[in-house]
Amino acid sequence: MTAFSATDHRLMARALQLAALGTYTTAPNPRVGCVIAHGERVVGEGWHQRAGEPHAEVFALRQAGAAARGATAYVTLEPCAHFGRTPPCADALVTAGVARVVVAIEDSFAQVDGAGLRRLRQAGVTVDVGLMTDAAWELNRGFLTRTRLHRPWVRLKLAQSLDGRTGLANGESKWITGEAAREDVQHWRARSSVILTGAGTARADNPRLTVRLAGTDVAPPLRAVVDSRLDALAPGCHLLDGSVPTVVFHRAGMTPAHPGYTAVECVVPDGPRPGVDLPAVLGALAARGANEVQVEAGPVLCGALFAAGLVDEILLYVAPVFLGDAARPLLALPTLTDMTGRWHLRLVEQRQVGDDMRLLLRPADRGVA
Amino acid sequence: MTAFSATDHRLMARALQLAALGTYTTAPNPRVGCVIAHGERVVGEGWHQRAGEPHAEVFALRQAGAAARGATAYVTLEPCAHFGRTPPCADALVTAGVARVVVAIEDSFAQVDGAGLRRLRQAGVTVDVGLMTDAAWELNRGFLTRTRLHRPWVRLKLAQSLDGRTGLANGESKWITGEAAREDVQHWRARSSVILTGAGTARADNPRLTVRLAGTDVAPPLRAVVDSRLDALAPGCHLLDGSVPTVVFHRAGMTPAHPGYTAVECVVPDGPRPGVDLPAVLGALAARGANEVQVEAGPVLCGALFAAGLVDEILLYVAPVFLGDAARPLLALPTLTDMTGRWHLRLVEQRQVGDDMRLLLRPADRGVA
Repeated sequence: MTAFSATDHRLMARALQLAALGTYTTAPNPRVGCVIAHGERVVGEGWHQRAGEPHAEVFALRQAGAAARGATAYVTLEPCAHFGRTPPCADALVTAGVARVVVAIEDSFAQVDGAGLRRLRQAGVTVDVGLMTDAAWELNRGFLTRTRLHRPWVRLKLAQSLDGRTGLANGESKWITGEAAREDVQHWRARSSVILTGAGTARADNPRLTVRLAGTDVAPPLRAVVDSRLDALAPGCHLLDGSVPTVVFHRAGMTPAHPGYTAVECVVPDGPRPGVDLPAVLGALAARGANEVQVEAGPVLCGALFAAGLVDEILLYVAPVFLGDAARPLLALPTLTDMTGRWHLRLVEQRQVGDDMRLLLRPADRGVA
Repeated sequence: MTAFSATDHRLMARALQLAALGTYTTAPNPRVGCVIAHGERVVGEGWHQRAGEPHAEVFALRQAGAAARGATAYVTLEPCAHFGRTPPCADALVTAGVARVVVAIEDSFAQVDGAGLRRLRQAGVTVDVGLMTDAAWELNRGFLTRTRLHRPWVRLKLAQSLDGRTGLANGESKWITGEAAREDVQHWRARSSVILTGAGTARADNPRLTVRLAGTDVAPPLRAVVDSRLDALAPGCHLLDGSVPTVVFHRAGMTPAHPGYTAVECVVPDGPRPGVDLPAVLGALAARGANEVQVEAGPVLCGALFAAGLVDEILLYVAPVFLGDAARPLLALPTLTDMTGRWHLRLVEQRQVGDDMRLLLRPADRGVA
């Protein structure tokens, strides 16, 4: 266990701040920040902005110039060691003469996975790993889940009344939560690679599933729909407008209900389960580089994902209202016969958003990293 | 509007603190505290402890002795002006030579209702009313509701999962919340004059509805059951154990299902509505001096009280679990056909109790005082 100094902590915190600037734009790449310093004196800063563009270390080294020699580099994720769309950052750090590299967390991406650290150490650079690992993991929980588990990080976004209801019995669900909560959702969409919905929601709400954040640079997320019979998207609906790439997952042997489906990509997920195989859907999305998938769907699809253990976190907006027992439930889950079967959650964060409460929850049986 | 000084605020805050010491014991009387001071220098303190025993002012005057002359008395509720079980406090303050009386809130009890203030002013005492009124109202919201509206303050105590479920479909409801939450409930029972339940809960859970707070002085609340057909209490059940006075509200013309009912008082509430008239139940409890009624019942009775506008606050414990859509609902309420009909609540307080969240909510259309 390396003993990190207060300066190490302060500069890694800064690197994490820089990394977070890429939250809406780096996918499918990770969010990475880099600070180069001599002791307290910072000589270079950088962050990764967009796939295909230089990595955080390159920006920081450019700014540092000759001052990189003998310096310490703080990087929020293990520097890469492979030629991707850019040359390896580990080599660049060595070439620049950096004396020490502090890394928050190792990169589990197959082409890095320790190779960056080895390259640095072989070149005589001091490498210290494991500073502010939790925060670094949080920042790239999507990327790290995808590269470790070959599926994206799955977030359910749900809005309910205090008594756990998402809409009226007649289907009306606009709006339970207030404007501030609905605007807040846009930020969570913006950090997602995919917004996934189901046939019921597509049919009932005609959602756009686009990001509406004026003046903010956002890599638009893919839209995905589980529409097993290829008949949930009405002609002229927003999901068929071609404004954003859209994938429809359906069962084998289905024919689109109308020609409007030519505007989207129709995919049969390749899995053993009958109907639309949900793990296969997530696998297909991961194969396309999806780090975080945000699910905005009804109780059936959300419940199925949750009951299958495929949900990593739940973003739950709770409005200070009651809707009563006839209203629609939050999640359709298997009927419990024993209290020991209840699903435990861990409250990760809570805050007030306008008049509504926002809870971020994770399954209690899931560790942090 | 009187301009109160910082000293006034500080000493009234102290008087409120003293008053709160009577939270579990003063019913049917109000919780009252009194501080007597010359400027910053406190010469007497007192609080009302129990009906039939001296009022707060009397304790404070005893402690002050001759030092009360020319002093200021801070009282959280208008001093009484009538001979009840004790002589009028307004007279005692005048006799002791108090120069100024600061009162947080007027007493709406018919036999006081401004008479205490008039008595003091007639005797030449300076009287300033309206300091920290909200806190004073909160402390006696039960007493003030009963004396103003002739019904008690009604609190629903509910425990649910995050998805708004209070028990499994098979009736199992032990336990959704943790031990800390269940212990916390005891404090809310202790401040209540009555614990009210319904036939379904009495039948399914065989509750005790007693206060279990070791080492704490508590005036045990009355137990009340809405048992319209006089058949929900099984022979030998806790509510028939005679340990605490218990009232059963039932419909006219019913005969108890078995002789065990002789251990309780059976009452037909006198109201115009068919079945057990709920406003009449509350009226009957108010007539017995009930300030705060805590309802610990199922979705039917709780929902009926809420839908009838008879609920003043909801003490909602939320456990970090999901129970699914087959589980039991929080409140049975009339089916909404339009989102504008939803019931709005105001979050008064929130805190963490063990692993559970505790919310105190009030209907949003209800003012504070």
